[in-house]
Amino acid sequence: MKWLAGKLPHDWRQRLYIIIFEADTRPGRLFDLALLIAICLSVLTVVVSSVSAVQDRAGRFMTILEWLFTIAFTLEYIARLVSAHRPMRYALSFYGIIDVISILPTYLAILVPELHGLIDVRMLRLMRAFRILKLTAYVNEAGVLSRALLNARRKIFVFLGFISIVVVIFGTLMHVIEGPEHGFTSIPIGIYWAIVTLTTTGYGDVVPVTGLGKAITGFVMLLGYSVIAIPTGIMGAEIHSVMKEKPVTTRTCVHCLTEGHETDARFCKHCGEPLPPHQTDTAATPIR
Amino acid sequence: MKWLAGKLPHDWRQRLYIIIFEADTRPGRLFDLALLIAICLSVLTVVVSSVSAVQDRAGRFMTILEWLFTIAFTLEYIARLVSAHRPMRYALSFYGIIDVISILPTYLAILVPELHGLIDVRMLRLMRAFRILKLTAYVNEAGVLSRALLNARRKIFVFLGFISIVVVIFGTLMHVIEGPEHGFTSIPIGIYWAIVTLTTTGYGDVVPVTGLGKAITGFVMLLGYSVIAIPTGIMGAEIHSVMKEKPVTTRTCVHCLTEGHETDARFCKHCGEPLPPHQTDTAATPIR
Amino acid sequence: MKWLAGKLPHDWRQRLYIIIFEADTRPGRLFDLALLIAICLSVLTVVVSSVSAVQDRAGRFMTILEWLFTIAFTLEYIARLVSAHRPMRYALSFYGIIDVISILPTYLAILVPELHGLIDVRMLRLMRAFRILKLTAYVNEAGVLSRALLNARRKIFVFLGFISIVVVIFGTLMHVIEGPEHGFTSIPIGIYWAIVTLTTTGYGDVVPVTGLGKAITGFVMLLGYSVIAIPTGIMGAEIHSVMKEKPVTTRTCVHCLTEGHETDARFCKHCGEPLPPHQTDTAATPIR
Amino acid sequence: MKWLAGKLPHDWRQRLYIIIFEADTRPGRLFDLALLIAICLSVLTVVVSSVSAVQDRAGRFMTILEWLFTIAFTLEYIARLVSAHRPMRYALSFYGIIDVISILPTYLAILVPELHGLIDVRMLRLMRAFRILKLTAYVNEAGVLSRALLNARRKIFVFLGFISIVVVIFGTLMHVIEGPEHGFTSIPIGIYWAIVTLTTTGYGDVVPVTGLGKAITGFVMLLGYSVIAIPTGIMGAEIHSVMKEKPVTTRTCVHCLTEGHETDARFCKHCGEPLPPHQTDTAATPIR
Repeated sequence: MKWLAGKLPHDWRQRLYIIIFEADTRPGRLFDLALLIAICLSVLTVVVSSVSAVQDRAGRFMTILEWLFTIAFTLEYIARLVSAHRPMRYALSFYGIIDVISILPTYLAILVPELHGLIDVRMLRLMRAFRILKLTAYVNEAGVLSRALLNARRKIFVFLGFISIVVVIFGTLMHVIEGPEHGFTSIPIGIYWAIVTLTTTGYGDVVPVTGLGKAITGFVMLLGYSVIAIPTGIMGAEIHSVMKEKPVTTRTCVHCLTEGHETDARFCKHCGEPLPPHQTDTAATPIR
Repeated sequence: MKWLAGKLPHDWRQRLYIIIFEADTRPGRLFDLALLIAICLSVLTVVVSSVSAVQDRAGRFMTILEWLFTIAFTLEYIARLVSAHRPMRYALSFYGIIDVISILPTYLAILVPELHGLIDVRMLRLMRAFRILKLTAYVNEAGVLSRALLNARRKIFVFLGFISIVVVIFGTLMHVIEGPEHGFTSIPIGIYWAIVTLTTTGYGDVVPVTGLGKAITGFVMLLGYSVIAIPTGIMGAEIHSVMKEKPVTTRTCVHCLTEGHETDARFCKHCGEPLPPHQTDTAATPIR
Repeated sequence: MKWLAGKLPHDWRQRLYIIIFEADTRPGRLFDLALLIAICLSVLTVVVSSVSAVQDRAGRFMTILEWLFTIAFTLEYIARLVSAHRPMRYALSFYGIIDVISILPTYLAILVPELHGLIDVRMLRLMRAFRILKLTAYVNEAGVLSRALLNARRKIFVFLGFISIVVVIFGTLMHVIEGPEHGFTSIPIGIYWAIVTLTTTGYGDVVPVTGLGKAITGFVMLLGYSVIAIPTGIMGAEIHSVMKEKPVTTRTCVHCLTEGHETDARFCKHCGEPLPPHQTDTAATPIR
Repeated sequence: MKWLAGKLPHDWRQRLYIIIFEADTRPGRLFDLALLIAICLSVLTVVVSSVSAVQDRAGRFMTILEWLFTIAFTLEYIARLVSAHRPMRYALSFYGIIDVISILPTYLAILVPELHGLIDVRMLRLMRAFRILKLTAYVNEAGVLSRALLNARRKIFVFLGFISIVVVIFGTLMHVIEGPEHGFTSIPIGIYWAIVTLTTTGYGDVVPVTGLGKAITGFVMLLGYSVIAIPTGIMGAEIHSVMKEKPVTTRTCVHCLTEGHETDARFCKHCGEPLPPHQTDTAATPIR
C-alpha cells in the first residue's frame, strides 16, 4: 500500500499539507521552526534597514536579504496554495491575507515606486508568528491568560469607561485652567495630557504651570496610582480562578451514573458507592 | 380596556415615562441607545471645537451641530419634566440638575457673551451617560468593582493617609535640601514634586540637582514603586472575596425551616434531613 | 462619693488624663478631633507660608497664626506633663520628644535667628497625627496592612536586595557605555538613572544617547515593568491570608474542653459533642 | 582521636573548608558576615571613586582602599583554592570564575594601563554576595519567590512575546506617522519610544508631535497601564499557590501505610483508622 501511495499526487499534496499546516510530525515541527526564524530575521532586516547609518553602509546587502526573504515567503505561499484542500478558502482566510500582505509591498515598491511608503507594511509578517505559536506548548499558557481576560472583559470595559470619562473631564478642566499659553492649546491636548498623567507616564512635554493646575495634577496622579489596583486586582482574581479550575474528568459512577468525579475521589459524591479506580489520563491534568 | 387607555392623557404620559426613564421595553432601550450616542457625539463636538484649526475651518458647522444637540437635549428635558410623576422632584434630583447644567451654557453664551468661558461646563453631559449605564448589563460588573472598593475603603483611606504624610514630609525635606535655586521654590512645589516622584510619573519639570537630593529621590521612587503593591494587594484580595461570595438562594429545609442552602447541597446542613431537589433559578447564579 | 471625688486634685488630673490621653469618653474624642484639626491647620500654615507670594502679602498674618498654634501646642504639652502619671517617662517617650520638637523651632527662631533654617522641623507635627489615629476605628485596617507587611518583610527584603544589585550593575554599565559626555558623569549618577528607569519614573534628565545605551534602557524598563509584579504578588497573597484569618473565639467544648470553635459551629470538631449555643460577641467578628 | 586530628594537615584544610565554604559553625558565619561587609565596602569604594570630585580630593586614599580589598580578596581566593577538595573544579565553577574576575582588573590596570576601561568589571564582586545569601535564613523566602517565578515562567514568556510584538508594531507605526523630523529617525528609535511609553516610563526625549501620533500614544499608554495587570495577576496567583502548598509530612498510617497525612489530621484519609498523635516537627511548618 505504502509504495503505491507514494506515487499518487494526492499523497504528495497531503504530505506537503502535513508539513506546512500541521506540527505533529518531525518535518512539520522543523518547518515551523525554520519559518519562525525566517520571520524573525526578515523583521530584523526591516528594522535594521530603517537606520540611515546602516542604509548608507550596507544598503545593497539589506536589499538582497530582503529579496531573499520575499522570494522564500512567496514560495511558501505558493506551497500553501497548492497543498491546501480548498485553496480559495485558505487565500481568503485571515492568515491567507496576512501572508499576501507581508510579501506584496516588496514587489509593489519595484513596480510602483510611489508606493514605497507602504514598505513598512511588511512588518505584518510578525503576525504570522502567531500561527506557529498556536501549535506549540505555549498555547495552554496563552489559553489561561486569554480565558482570564475573557472572564474579566466586562469588568475591564467598565474600568476603561471610567478612565475615559475621567481623562475627558480632567482634560477639559486643565484646558480651562491652564489655557493655551501654558501648552494646553485644545481639549484633545488636555485629554492627551490627562492620559500621560493618569497612566503615570509623565513625558513632561505638557506640564501644569499654575498652582491650581499643579494641585489638580497631583490629584490625577494619585488617582492613577491608586486606580491601577483595579485592573490588577481583577486580573489577579481571574487568573487565580482559571488556574484553580478543576480538570474535567469523565469518571463515571457505576451506580448512579453521574459524571465528572475528581481524580482523587474514592467514593461517588452523590450516592456514596465506591468508584472504580482512576486511570491516570493526561487530558485530565490541571492546566498550569 | 386597551383602546380606552390609549385615549387617556395619563396613559400617554405613562408610556413616555416608560420609554424615557426605564429600559425594560424595546422602545425604552432604543431611546437609551440613541441618547447615549447623542451624548457621545455632542461631547465629541465640544472636544473637536476646541481645536483652533477646526474652529477656523469649520467653526460655523460646529456651531450648528452644537445647537442641534442643545435643542435635542432641551426637548428631552421637557419630555422628562412632562412625563415624570413628580416633576419638581425630578428637576431637583442629581440627574435633573445635571440635565439643566448640560444645556444652559449654550443659551447663556448667547444671552450673556461674557459667560462664554463657562461653555465647557457642557462637558458635564458625560455624567448623563452614567444614568444610561445604570440600566445595562454592565451594572453587575460595576457592582462587583464598587462593592470591592466599598469593602476596601478604610484600608485605602489608611493608605492615602500614609501617602499624604510621606509626600508632605519629603516635599518639605527637598525644599530644604534643594532650595529655590533648583526649582523647589516652596513647600507646595516640593509636595508636587513628591507626588510626581512617588507615583513614578516623573515629568522632569522639577528634578533634584544635588547629590543628597538625588539619593532621597532614589529612595522616594523605590518607596513608590514598592508601595503600589499595597492598594493592588488590597483590591486583589477584595475583588477575590466579592467574586467568591456565594449566591443567595432561598432553598428552605422542610424540616428545620432554615434558609440559604447552597445550590448543590443535597442535605440540610443544620438538621441533616434531605433537601427537596433544587430548581435552577437564574437569580441564584453567582455574580461574575 | 462622687461629690467628694470632684474636689480632689488627684481626680482633676485623672480627668485631664482621660481627656488628653484616652479616646473612650466624649470629651476625649472631642479633644482628639480638635487636636487633629489643629495639627492639620498648623501644618497647612507652614506649607502655605513657604510660598513667597503669600509671605509677601500675608506674612504678618501667617506669623500670628503660627504663634497661635505654637502657644496652643505648648499649653497642650504642659497639660500632658501635668496629667501624666509619670511626667518624666512621658517627656522621654517617642511622642513626648516629638511634641517638644514640634514647638521648639518657633521659639528658637526668635531667640537664635541663625537657626531659622530649622523652622521646617515643625513639620514633624504631622507625626503627632499618628497618635490620634492609633485610637480610632482605622487602627484595625492599619493593623491588617501592617500585619501583611510584617509577614511579607523577608520577601520584600529579598526583593529590595535584588533591585539594589540590579541598579548598581546597570548604573555601572551605563556609566561605562554612555560616559560623562552623555550625562553619566559617575557611577552614583548611573545608579540614580537606573532607579529612575527601573521604577518607570522616567524624569528624562539623564537619558541614553547611544544605540547600545538605548537597548539596555529598553531592557531595564521592561525588567522594571515586569518585576513590579513581585512585590504586588507578595502583598496580594499576604493581605489575602491576613484577611482570611479566622477570628479567635473563646467558645469552649464542655466535654473535651478544647477552645477556639468557630462562631457557626454546632458540634465540637474534636469530640463530636454538641456545643452550647454561641453568644454573638462583637470582639469575635472577623477583621475586615 | 580529636587531639590527633588537630595535627593533621588534612584536618587544617578541612577546618578552613568549613569556615570558608559553609555557614553552619560560628566561625563560618562570622567569615561570611565579614566577607559580605568587605564586598559591600569594596563596591562602595568603586562607586564613590567614580565621582570626579572624590577622585580629585581623595584619589590616593581610594587607590589604597582598593588595593587593600584586592589583596584581601586575593588571599581569600588562595584560601579557597587550598581548602577546596578539588581545586580545579572550584576554579572552573561559576563562583570560582567570578572570584577571579573580581580581582583581576586591579592587577591588569597596573600591568596593562590600556585596559583601565575594564576597571569597572570589579563590580561583579556584587555577584559574590549571592553565594553568601544562599546560606542564610533568607533562602526560604528567595525560594518562594523563585519557585513562583519558575511556575509562572511560561506565562511570563507568552506575556513578553506579546509585549515584544506590540512594541515592534507600534514603533514601526510611529516611525511612519511621525517620521525623522519629529525625532523618530528609525524603527529602532520607534521601538525604544514604544518601550518607554508602554512601560509608562515616559522620559520625554522622544515625544509625538502630530495629532494622530498623540492619539496612538494615548492608546499605547492606556494599553501599558492596563496590561501590567497581567504579570501582576500571574505572580499574585503563583505566589499565593506556592505559599499555600501544604508542608510535606512523613506521618504514616499504621494500617494502610500511606504517607503524607496533614499535621492536624486525626484519622487516615484513606482507610479511616485513627492516626497516631502528631509530633510537632519544625521541618513540617508551612513555608511563609
